[in-house]
Amino acid sequence: MNVVGIDVGGTSIKIGVVNQKGRILKKVSVAINPKEPGLTALSRLAKTINSFKKTYHVKGVGIGVPGILDLSRGEVLFSSTTLNSWHSINIVKTLTNLTHLKVVLNNDANVATLAEAHFGKYKNKETLILLTLGTGVGGGIISRRKLFMGNKGQGAELGHISIDIHGRRCGCGRHGCLEAYASATALINDTKKILKKYPNSLLKNKKLNGKIIWDAYRKKDLAASIVIRNYIYYLGEGILNYCIIFRPDVILLTGGIANAGNLLLKPLREYVKKNHDGISGTAPVLLDFASLKYDSGIIGAASLVL
Amino acid sequence: MNVVGIDVGGTSIKIGVVNQKGRILKKVSVAINPKEPGLTALSRLAKTINSFKKTYHVKGVGIGVPGILDLSRGEVLFSSTTLNSWHSINIVKTLTNLTHLKVVLNNDANVATLAEAHFGKYKNKETLILLTLGTGVGGGIISRRKLFMGNKGQGAELGHISIDIHGRRCGCGRHGCLEAYASATALINDTKKILKKYPNSLLKNKKLNGKIIWDAYRKKDLAASIVIRNYIYYLGEGILNYCIIFRPDVILLTGGIANAGNLLLKPLREYVKKNHDGISGTAPVLLDFASLKYDSGIIGAASLVL
Repeated sequence: MNVVGIDVGGTSIKIGVVNQKGRILKKVSVAINPKEPGLTALSRLAKTINSFKKTYHVKGVGIGVPGILDLSRGEVLFSSTTLNSWHSINIVKTLTNLTHLKVVLNNDANVATLAEAHFGKYKNKETLILLTLGTGVGGGIISRRKLFMGNKGQGAELGHISIDIHGRRCGCGRHGCLEAYASATALINDTKKILKKYPNSLLKNKKLNGKIIWDAYRKKDLAASIVIRNYIYYLGEGILNYCIIFRPDVILLTGGIANAGNLLLKPLREYVKKNHDGISGTAPVLLDFASLKYDSGIIGAASLVL
Repeated sequence: MNVVGIDVGGTSIKIGVVNQKGRILKKVSVAINPKEPGLTALSRLAKTINSFKKTYHVKGVGIGVPGILDLSRGEVLFSSTTLNSWHSINIVKTLTNLTHLKVVLNNDANVATLAEAHFGKYKNKETLILLTLGTGVGGGIISRRKLFMGNKGQGAELGHISIDIHGRRCGCGRHGCLEAYASATALINDTKKILKKYPNSLLKNKKLNGKIIWDAYRKKDLAASIVIRNYIYYLGEGILNYCIIFRPDVILLTGGIANAGNLLLKPLREYVKKNHDGISGTAPVLLDFASLKYDSGIIGAASLVL
């Protein structure tokens, strides 16, 4: 028996048929048109699902959407502007009515976490934390091998804990959120700031993105080194907080920043070890990258129903 | 069928027979002698349990111990000095051998959390967080109506998340732990500091404890007001972090600081509401005191086996 997994991204929607082993049997990608009414977009999605049903035995649909949802009502509450037209639509009910299948909704970070928990290198761990380090910082929690939800599925907003209550103002309104220090956005902003003091940096007058900054760090550029050292410190402190709260078996990193590979992972592991995984003498916490890459959104969404 | 609940405190051990409804049928209290070898203390405990077995039908023993434990080995790793002699003893195995009963160990904060989850005012909530505000700050997590454990049962050290990575040094070695701001110890230290600037305070030259400070606050003493206002801010920020991570149904406060009653609860609730329970638009989080008082240690320990 197979499941349809839907990964709603910022610009496109990926839809796949996934089998019990997490293998994708068929997939298609459709563009998001921000001006299209949400109900029309959902009926386009339903058509694709229904066409899959002709070829594959499908028992349900899992759908992952970025933003803050209200799972008790099957709705998107906040998300990027491209999904504005989806707000206040009961996605679960709408898709159920149009496909006559069981539909389960969750947010993208939770879905990526489920993909790792079911089909990743560290599958079947009792306690697993995933941090997505991209434009923002998100996360998901596996506890007793199940996805942690919280009220209305609104738990695990792991980017918005404050690690410095007197610190930077975050987009969410609080001060010192992990996202304000450990997102790719924060890394770029920090680099912009420091470049004023380092006119000879390789990064001067470059259009900045994460990759360019890590490349300069690899070449031992001083400005990049200072920014990355601070980045490791901030992210490391956030990770120590999650070691202390959850004492997980493993913490996995994903998102654009994870492309830095060992340039990030090695010093981050050292920082966490040097600080005794949060509390001296307690069980060590494995720190690694998520193992599933581009299709983790489809596979994770499918895992909601598998 | 009944259960024996054992609450190991700093100076005494309370042992009770508890029925399925969480009612204590019989209880005794024995002093802790820090010089007594751990094995001797445990065999005294076992004698009491075995004497209960003569009168009551007992199916198991739950035991709550302060400190950091290794539940995979049934041992205390770190705790207050009074329990030094218990370290490196497999408490579970020792008591099982001496009583021929099923024995379950956990730490005191987890046990207090279980008591609330099973028998408190907010019993049966899906997601519940308990914070103990005493000499230190501890905590427990209920997720999907079960106690969250983490690796070796070492999760939920909720007092040691950093809310200010550049902030105060905590006893644990980190900077800015919630415990360094929101424990009774921190409240007393903060008061001592501020009194240097307020020679006319009601608190000047008093031997300080939590109660005296809250009493001065009630009488509108300026120094106490400043300290308490900061205390609400620190604790409020810690609570916002836990709202964001868990989006729990309820966060309960217990420990000595909870005796401040509405002097604490009212402004704290206002602070959390003013900050949108962490993230604007998400489900509100109830904030209240734990409802079980002095016997929650016995009842919670019993809940480990009930």
